Amino acid sequence: MGIAYRCEKNPLILPGDVIPSQDNFRVEGVFNCGVAKYKDEIILLCRVAESVQNDNLEQVLIPMIKEQSGIEIVETIVIKKKEHPDYDYSDSRSVWKINENGTKNIQYLTSLSHFRIARSKDGIHFTISDRPDVFPNVEDSWGIEDPRITQIGDDYYITYTTVSEYGTATGLMVTKDFYSFERKGIIFAPENKDVTIFPEKINGFYYAFNRPVPKAIGNPDIWLAKSPDLLHWGGQKHFLGVTEECEWISGRIGGGAVPIKTERGWLVIYHAADKENRYCLGAVLCDSNDPSILIANSKEPIMEPEAAYEKEGFFGNTVFTCGGLLEGDKLIIYYGAADDKICRADILLSDIYKELGVL
Amino acid sequence: MGIAYRCEKNPLILPGDVIPSQDNFRVEGVFNCGVAKYKDEIILLCRVAESVQNDNLEQVLIPMIKEQSGIEIVETIVIKKKEHPDYDYSDSRSVWKINENGTKNIQYLTSLSHFRIARSKDGIHFTISDRPDVFPNVEDSWGIEDPRITQIGDDYYITYTTVSEYGTATGLMVTKDFYSFERKGIIFAPENKDVTIFPEKINGFYYAFNRPVPKAIGNPDIWLAKSPDLLHWGGQKHFLGVTEECEWISGRIGGGAVPIKTERGWLVIYHAADKENRYCLGAVLCDSNDPSILIANSKEPIMEPEAAYEKEGFFGNTVFTCGGLLEGDKLIIYYGAADDKICRADILLSDIYKELGVL
Repeated sequence: MGIAYRCEKNPLILPGDVIPSQDNFRVEGVFNCGVAKYKDEIILLCRVAESVQNDNLEQVLIPMIKEQSGIEIVETIVIKKKEHPDYDYSDSRSVWKINENGTKNIQYLTSLSHFRIARSKDGIHFTISDRPDVFPNVEDSWGIEDPRITQIGDDYYITYTTVSEYGTATGLMVTKDFYSFERKGIIFAPENKDVTIFPEKINGFYYAFNRPVPKAIGNPDIWLAKSPDLLHWGGQKHFLGVTEECEWISGRIGGGAVPIKTERGWLVIYHAADKENRYCLGAVLCDSNDPSILIANSKEPIMEPEAAYEKEGFFGNTVFTCGGLLEGDKLIIYYGAADDKICRADILLSDIYKELGVL
Repeated sequence: MGIAYRCEKNPLILPGDVIPSQDNFRVEGVFNCGVAKYKDEIILLCRVAESVQNDNLEQVLIPMIKEQSGIEIVETIVIKKKEHPDYDYSDSRSVWKINENGTKNIQYLTSLSHFRIARSKDGIHFTISDRPDVFPNVEDSWGIEDPRITQIGDDYYITYTTVSEYGTATGLMVTKDFYSFERKGIIFAPENKDVTIFPEKINGFYYAFNRPVPKAIGNPDIWLAKSPDLLHWGGQKHFLGVTEECEWISGRIGGGAVPIKTERGWLVIYHAADKENRYCLGAVLCDSNDPSILIANSKEPIMEPEAAYEKEGFFGNTVFTCGGLLEGDKLIIYYGAADDKICRADILLSDIYKELGVL
């Protein structure tokens, strides 16, 4: 069933393949990776999530970046469960605070994420760096997550989620060589992530999907912004929203892979989740000359969690992509499975077009 | 008590001074006004909030903009209370939906806001337009709110809150004559409002305070963004946050008046509210050459709801400003009182400096 052909070597990268960045850390997941072609290699910029080793079930250990005497260090905060009956520990990814009025806010993340490069000649066998390639700094004190890579000329622009006590925002960095990375600051204020920049100017402007999460009014929906210079963004328009009509899009929706130019328009692979946080992938086509015009949208997911390695893991029932590659008539999708492994699936463009009703 | 001298003619403009925009509308409030000097007049661009006349307590009437056969119309939605036990009607400003998991979202606003110009030669006696000067369109289907005016050369840039089912975002419009207003689109995605643009470039960039409201992590805090062209914004930095240390800033904080240049730095009047939504005004000074550097912050409010017309109204216990004027050594603040009237208070700069501890 389905149009996605999973690679028989899946999962391609597992937590056990990653050497922890600190002696007392444990790698919980290697997943959600940006994808690029660089020289003769396929590069995955992988999110690596680490927790602090902990044998004591009475406590939760929180890793974060702190500044101490002008030096950035990785610090562990100890939360004694007994002392915090007002915290909810049921989500493996975060500690929630239950407020007096019954609302909940994330108080801490249980893991700290950084980026590590995995390289491959064949797109299947990857070698991952022994050490972090991009590590969060004190401005991302709760970590950096979910990179998306857009190649423009010789520059690779990387959007990423920057998390701190102030919220979940989107930062931008750029590299020419995947060795040195230049930080360009926060381009979208919190709460906003899942940002995918189109790989070329369209009618004089760059475009990017972004996914703000408003609090009082509205849903976690996809918006489209434009920019003259990739650093400053405006012209925000609502693009695609959650809907009760499709169960699998009833919870949240957001950018996935960086948009890919095809002869039929911009092909956009997005993620969507239902109210139980089951994450699937969908596809839309939008107009080559005006990406705010939606040509076609998939009624059903083009991929949903089915394999055991997608159903079970750090956060189960999840397929989530940050990038793909077009190879002839085939789309290669690299994706995070259950928030802890990296996998690959191939989908024929013609099968996506059929799903979109344009073939 | 306090350093703000309330005008003895307060309130300067009342709901009864405003002719409703529609026959079946009732003016609930005229408040939160942008302020500008234009030719020999002081102009207030006032937010006017209107509800639908309603004698039936069993129902709530919701005004909004709809498109019908290509024409934008003002429509009334009827909510029968009996049919919606899942709605919470206790907030006069909005109808909240209580979700299955206990969280609440705004489902409707009870009023629809537009802008109307009030003109004065003396800054005290104002004449307000008989009809709307700027009316929401289908993209602001729930209304436009809280304009802030920044004069740059002959152009008056107006940020405003644009509200729709997709959220509460910030739009930009520009006028040269307060007669025709050109819409420039949405500059900050939801949830983000209280945007004040600095009146000149600083080291090659425009700057603006903005107040995103993140959902999962973080608080309703003030951020600072920069722009090369006023239309596209980036370089977001957290500027000033709510704090448990000051009761009056423990709930929310956001931009107020457009920043005013003084010899001691940029004077910024902001609003802050406690957890009971009592809105006060505070002041900060930030560096002339780098507004991200905070020089001083008021420990106590420079103004808090004290007068009867500030304590009681559409939303009581509220003083809220969108703009002021510097006249010699005196700051004239125009402000919304209790979300339904426009008032004026004068504060000596020297008194603000004392409050800030810089004198």
